[in-house]
Amino acid sequence: MSASVVPEIEAANGKYASQFTKGDLPLPPGRKFLVVACMDARLDPARALGLEEGDAHVIRNAGGRTVDALRSVVISQQLLGTREIIIVHHTDCGMLTFSEGDIRAKIRDDLGEDADHIAFLPFGDLKKSVLDDIQLLKKSPLVLDVPITGYIYDVKTGKVEKVET
Amino acid sequence: MSASVVPEIEAANGKYASQFTKGDLPLPPGRKFLVVACMDARLDPARALGLEEGDAHVIRNAGGRTVDALRSVVISQQLLGTREIIIVHHTDCGMLTFSEGDIRAKIRDDLGEDADHIAFLPFGDLKKSVLDDIQLLKKSPLVLDVPITGYIYDVKTGKVEKVET
Repeated sequence: MSASVVPEIEAANGKYASQFTKGDLPLPPGRKFLVVACMDARLDPARALGLEEGDAHVIRNAGGRTVDALRSVVISQQLLGTREIIIVHHTDCGMLTFSEGDIRAKIRDDLGEDADHIAFLPFGDLKKSVLDDIQLLKKSPLVLDVPITGYIYDVKTGKVEKVET
Repeated sequence: MSASVVPEIEAANGKYASQFTKGDLPLPPGRKFLVVACMDARLDPARALGLEEGDAHVIRNAGGRTVDALRSVVISQQLLGTREIIIVHHTDCGMLTFSEGDIRAKIRDDLGEDADHIAFLPFGDLKKSVLDDIQLLKKSPLVLDVPITGYIYDVKTGKVEKVET
């Protein structure tokens, strides 16, 4: 197998820590918002949206699906005072490339396990996935009525485009 | 209410996109690993661990809990080829400050809603939370047997410290 990334990560962190000047930031996010974004390697929410350490909560999962972020959104709002939500899905997303049946079949074939109890939440249309995820939050009785803006990030250009509701 | 962060975010993204040079990255993470980290605003996994766009999946939620990241971990491994896992929890975490009962009572009082069906996953000990989260992945039949390393990030110094298993 290939070498572990641990030595590289620890070396990079040593450099980061040696130049670190942000040790006095408070626990609640300074700009009082949260981001729900895809885990995709090509998307760096901090760089792409101009976030500095201390600014905002960043919740990430496969697809940037809000139903899978609900626990964290509630904690962010109820305990740490965020009052705005930004959702970021992106072009060329892996979630566009498979169905629930596909991944369950792969897990059955490769691992010999049944994953029918997990909703993997793929989608077929990017704009619709953003709109669905905005609606899920708007309809949840556990989520505060705050401004929610959805974007599609273009992995070819680095640009975000707002999804009009 | 305060002004929306949308104009600031869009301005920052315009600047990012104007200097963007990484439009040809493939979908699978180049360094073949995934990070599970807390959503905390003070932690920037990319800067703190030396990640460039295209390197690694980054999954984030309240506390960096792996049970809440399982869907994304399975997708990352089964469909996008990651073969190592890095877990990052951190000092002064909000998850150390409340109990399941506390947040459910707050939701009942403030929103008039019952949230007893949600496990909010707070913890009382940082080292134990990292070890528990490593074990959860190691025991899951849906997760491949890959190297898993857990860290505690110090928000005062920017340093990560490995949690010895």
